[in-house]
Amino acid sequence: MTITTDHRFLRALRREPVDMTPIWIMRQAGRYLPEYRATRARAGSFLALAQTPELACEVTLQPLERFALDAAILFSDILTVPDAMGLGLHFVEGEGPKFAHPVRSVADIDRLGVPDPETKLRYVMDAVRLIRRELNERAPLIGFAGSPWTLACYMIEGEGSASFARAKALALENPQAMHRLLEVLARSVGAYLAAQAAAGAQALMVFDTWGGLLMPAMFREFSLRWLAAVVAQVHAQAPGVPITLFSKGANAHLEALADTGCNALGVDWTIDIGAARERVGARVALQGNLDPAVLAASPEAIRSQARAVLDSFGAHPGHVFNLGHGITPDIPPEHVAVLVDAVHEFSRNR
Amino acid sequence: MTITTDHRFLRALRREPVDMTPIWIMRQAGRYLPEYRATRARAGSFLALAQTPELACEVTLQPLERFALDAAILFSDILTVPDAMGLGLHFVEGEGPKFAHPVRSVADIDRLGVPDPETKLRYVMDAVRLIRRELNERAPLIGFAGSPWTLACYMIEGEGSASFARAKALALENPQAMHRLLEVLARSVGAYLAAQAAAGAQALMVFDTWGGLLMPAMFREFSLRWLAAVVAQVHAQAPGVPITLFSKGANAHLEALADTGCNALGVDWTIDIGAARERVGARVALQGNLDPAVLAASPEAIRSQARAVLDSFGAHPGHVFNLGHGITPDIPPEHVAVLVDAVHEFSRNR
Repeated sequence: MTITTDHRFLRALRREPVDMTPIWIMRQAGRYLPEYRATRARAGSFLALAQTPELACEVTLQPLERFALDAAILFSDILTVPDAMGLGLHFVEGEGPKFAHPVRSVADIDRLGVPDPETKLRYVMDAVRLIRRELNERAPLIGFAGSPWTLACYMIEGEGSASFARAKALALENPQAMHRLLEVLARSVGAYLAAQAAAGAQALMVFDTWGGLLMPAMFREFSLRWLAAVVAQVHAQAPGVPITLFSKGANAHLEALADTGCNALGVDWTIDIGAARERVGARVALQGNLDPAVLAASPEAIRSQARAVLDSFGAHPGHVFNLGHGITPDIPPEHVAVLVDAVHEFSRNR
Repeated sequence: MTITTDHRFLRALRREPVDMTPIWIMRQAGRYLPEYRATRARAGSFLALAQTPELACEVTLQPLERFALDAAILFSDILTVPDAMGLGLHFVEGEGPKFAHPVRSVADIDRLGVPDPETKLRYVMDAVRLIRRELNERAPLIGFAGSPWTLACYMIEGEGSASFARAKALALENPQAMHRLLEVLARSVGAYLAAQAAAGAQALMVFDTWGGLLMPAMFREFSLRWLAAVVAQVHAQAPGVPITLFSKGANAHLEALADTGCNALGVDWTIDIGAARERVGARVALQGNLDPAVLAASPEAIRSQARAVLDSFGAHPGHVFNLGHGITPDIPPEHVAVLVDAVHEFSRNR
């Protein structure tokens, strides 16, 4: 398989000069697109869509047909790993993900093993191979996983939560048990990401969606430490494949996140990306960080805010433009075209 | 009316030495208390509870009967001001606040005036006077209001929102109109807080609940600027009454928030309060910042995390212990007693 390494997205992740700033959009294959909603309806359920390689491939490619995006991201869910561990992932319409068998005891933790990606998560690997073939080098493909802490949150609560107080209580009351859980998750996530790279993913990303809910000392102990373990395993098992960490709401920890050895950091929209670059930009590329809500405003506002993010980052290498969080279902697709074109236009040959 | 100025809570707000660190808890009069739920049931609705001075007084005092708290906070809602402006506040069970007449046009904005607190918000002023009398100097009384930006968010959306994209879009597309709205809100909030002080509130607080959802440039323009206007008006109309600003999720802006001239800043739990103190502690007191989820853990964990916050702040003047956000309904009241007693015990004569 040919590995295209000179695409501007991969160059930016390596902090090499680019002809224009690359852009992709978190959740770009999503409900704001009518063609996504049509495929989703045909699939019958979100899980059927994610678990059928042909359908996952179809929705992964849809946004690239419409917009001049610089990367595709595997259509999947962050909870595939705990599902493969036997927790029984399912989705209740309008309520989000749930596990049939949440982790409720130390015995539940001790029962968990590292799922083999090519057997237990074969549908993901098949999707990666198919997408990579269908992309035919048009754009690089990003693989991804949830972070150990974020997966642990869902596994312990059994579903989403505003505070994940149950997961935090386990961490505070029995840190040894929590670390056993995080350790098996880190090994599972590392193996899963390395397998995605082996199947064709050219860049990898870890979503630490709930790291930012932690007090700093707990973030360092329960989120950061195991992100670093994942990064080390990926570098060992998939050398040369860049890995991006995104801990939403954890801007207090950018330096420590860069110290994990990751190649890039996702940044949410609550700090100036220029300030983030000054703090860590000599070590990592940065991805971000337009407020997703800006896409609900007028084309003029979208263009001016896109320019503001580019200006804040400045004419330095190592910027992958993105939103600071996933695109929401209410956004008109035309507004995404406005953003993608504005980012390319304003950053060309600067 | 006697003004008690030597209570440790008021001393801490002035960054004077105290015998032990004062503590109060955001939403301390709330659903986690069975006696609150009983009064709430008797009132028939949340609004009836908030709008009947005798009932508001009753629930305000309930947590002080149980715990050795160092301040009472008026039981009310942050949306009383827009309601007094004619927007028609109501609560839909399980859905949160809604306005019957949201702001949907520039004409809607131009129609708004500053409500006179002693007529349009008389029930709040009566509650303040009654609570102050019933407290009988046991503890100082805190009055509060929502920030101009936060009120504008609800007024424009008509209800709560994950992103307040409609409010952000107005700010981006028609900043002049947004500033007209924020200006009338700032004058209204300033007058309302000054009136609460005149009625007996010994400290004031502004909850900028949604400021942290903004990109930094928008935070400075649409939230911070009007917080500063409120602070200036309160200092002019209620001289000597300390005012605390709490912009949740806006830790990037602590220095700028301190520059408003406020007396104290609330701090959420995602930064070390010691780091916050190093950044701004020479100018303002700090309130915070235990993760509310810690109260769901064991008494041992609560005690050790309380100690960690106290140790992080260190033996400096100017700390008001609190959670980093409101207490949640699932917390056992005994856990609050553990926290309050631990904070007093660990900080005594240090």
